[in-house]
Amino acid sequence: MIYLDNAATTRVTEPILEVMLSYLKESYGNPSSLYFLGRKSKRVIETAREQVAKAINAKPEQIFFTSGATESNNWVISNFDYVICSKIEHHSILNNPKCHQSDFSELERKIRKNNADLVTYMLVNNETGQIFDIKSLVEISHKMGIMFHTDATQAFGHIPIDVKELAVDSLSLSGHKFHAPKGVGILYLKDPSKYKPLFYGGQQEKNLRAGTENVAGIAAIGKAVELYNFSKEKDGICRTIQGKFYSAFKDMTDVWFNTNISNSIPTTLNLAFKNAESESLMLLLDSNGICVSSGSACNSRSLESSHVLKVMGTPEEYIYNSIRLSWDESITNEQINYVIKSIKNNVKKIRGYV
Amino acid sequence: MIYLDNAATTRVTEPILEVMLSYLKESYGNPSSLYFLGRKSKRVIETAREQVAKAINAKPEQIFFTSGATESNNWVISNFDYVICSKIEHHSILNNPKCHQSDFSELERKIRKNNADLVTYMLVNNETGQIFDIKSLVEISHKMGIMFHTDATQAFGHIPIDVKELAVDSLSLSGHKFHAPKGVGILYLKDPSKYKPLFYGGQQEKNLRAGTENVAGIAAIGKAVELYNFSKEKDGICRTIQGKFYSAFKDMTDVWFNTNISNSIPTTLNLAFKNAESESLMLLLDSNGICVSSGSACNSRSLESSHVLKVMGTPEEYIYNSIRLSWDESITNEQINYVIKSIKNNVKKIRGYV
Repeated sequence: MIYLDNAATTRVTEPILEVMLSYLKESYGNPSSLYFLGRKSKRVIETAREQVAKAINAKPEQIFFTSGATESNNWVISNFDYVICSKIEHHSILNNPKCHQSDFSELERKIRKNNADLVTYMLVNNETGQIFDIKSLVEISHKMGIMFHTDATQAFGHIPIDVKELAVDSLSLSGHKFHAPKGVGILYLKDPSKYKPLFYGGQQEKNLRAGTENVAGIAAIGKAVELYNFSKEKDGICRTIQGKFYSAFKDMTDVWFNTNISNSIPTTLNLAFKNAESESLMLLLDSNGICVSSGSACNSRSLESSHVLKVMGTPEEYIYNSIRLSWDESITNEQINYVIKSIKNNVKKIRGYV
Repeated sequence: MIYLDNAATTRVTEPILEVMLSYLKESYGNPSSLYFLGRKSKRVIETAREQVAKAINAKPEQIFFTSGATESNNWVISNFDYVICSKIEHHSILNNPKCHQSDFSELERKIRKNNADLVTYMLVNNETGQIFDIKSLVEISHKMGIMFHTDATQAFGHIPIDVKELAVDSLSLSGHKFHAPKGVGILYLKDPSKYKPLFYGGQQEKNLRAGTENVAGIAAIGKAVELYNFSKEKDGICRTIQGKFYSAFKDMTDVWFNTNISNSIPTTLNLAFKNAESESLMLLLDSNGICVSSGSACNSRSLESSHVLKVMGTPEEYIYNSIRLSWDESITNEQINYVIKSIKNNVKKIRGYV
């Protein structure tokens, strides 16, 4: 199997599993319990909080653990009344009735007109890997006295994240995008005292996120931010892979790149082949043992075309034909060549039927 | 170590770990992905949904997976405006500003007076193990045309749960109370079409609970409801253990039982010793390798006395002295005798200092 869908989810690696196992099997105490087994669980949560804080240049008291980025995004938004967001946000923002879409250029006018109290723009798009320079948007928002949230789910590990430099008021992350398990996420809050919880209940997470902590998941995400944060070395390896894929496909006839590789994370290439419907291509690749995505995973069971690609101007004849390849540094040259060959063959095959 | 705090949380056992590992290490696909790895994850979620449905006599389409009972309780309550609850609910209900406490006897009057739209009463209390016969309350509520929720977190595995017989409209469960990991829970909804989500986002869980599914956790909870559901055999073993503890302590001077063993689950005994403050006793037992709880885990970092024991009429001189023992069927006679001896010795020790 060649897994080329790391943007959808990632494998839990051995060192992360090892950390998890010890908190599932042996140190299974409830972090609220005061005996040694409880104190040990409490301690690993605080260690993970420090690890996450360090990874994104925050303070530990600004880090909160959630069940994932969907919860983190929903939690932040629950604190506001009128939210302005990009047109290409993740559905956990886009589908919230409080969220109203806006273009970059219209931001200032829309904030004023609607008395908005939060702006939220993603840092990296999940379908294309495009990086957004949100700093100017943060500045505009703050100048107008309103707060700024960013969903950085697709960014962590692929670009450096520094919350002080970004100057955002809040930021979401999801563990399963960087080798921690599904079901654990992070919310960074610059000033936690300004927020109400989404979950009422016990006093966990300083009264801001009730519920017995997912200790093994939190220990895992703490280890994962250390092991899988951005590094220049990894960036170099992954950019080379991106270049290989790009070069292999760019001379094909009727190909369209949804990823602009000069402004994207190094681990994604979203592209489309005219007259080769993406779901067919995905299934043929599946039968060759290759996992790629047609659209984002979160959206793949829907028949609607991608809202992201529509907004980004993908031509009509390519919009249903887009596949996303997303790798990590472990993919070998042999695998890359096999994937390229398989995609080319299968595109030819599908086109032959048309 | 002798772990006597299963009411706070439980160990993830080997067969559950095995299930989890396969979905963390190998079958790590995103359930929304359409290739085989994704389809496999999707399948295990639907299997778990069937397992849970069968365990509580529901239909699979009535079962939703959450991050835990705190989320499940918050989700249900988010759908209502004025909620009446018991005075001894878990904090995930009690601390919700929409929830208003009421005695059993006042229920009808309070519903009418406040135009309440939901009643929520727990099935088993977490601190004492007391079982509540909620059927008459469900009847009163339904007669008045309002819905009924029960938090059954502390009940599963200890008494049989049949949602049809209980006739509740919704019911919460938490995996880590019955050997599944922390961070996964269940919400049963009799008629899901009546509810809005708490999380907006992707189309997971039939558009009612967005966010990439915690596949390993869900697979684990599916296996756990099968392995650790109520059985007469387990009930018999645990009732014998409860009897042993009760008999050993009942003749001590100045002892108070917060658990009425004729009306409790068979796995808990909450009791208090005059002039032996519970936190000291808990710490001395900890140094003997015995894990017990002073109050419920969720509340143990607070200095307030237990709201449950206050309501249940524990005398002033016992309220700060209550410890909870909660076991499972794996505890041996030798361990039981060691615990009894250790508690008696340490109570004597603390009383000697007074």
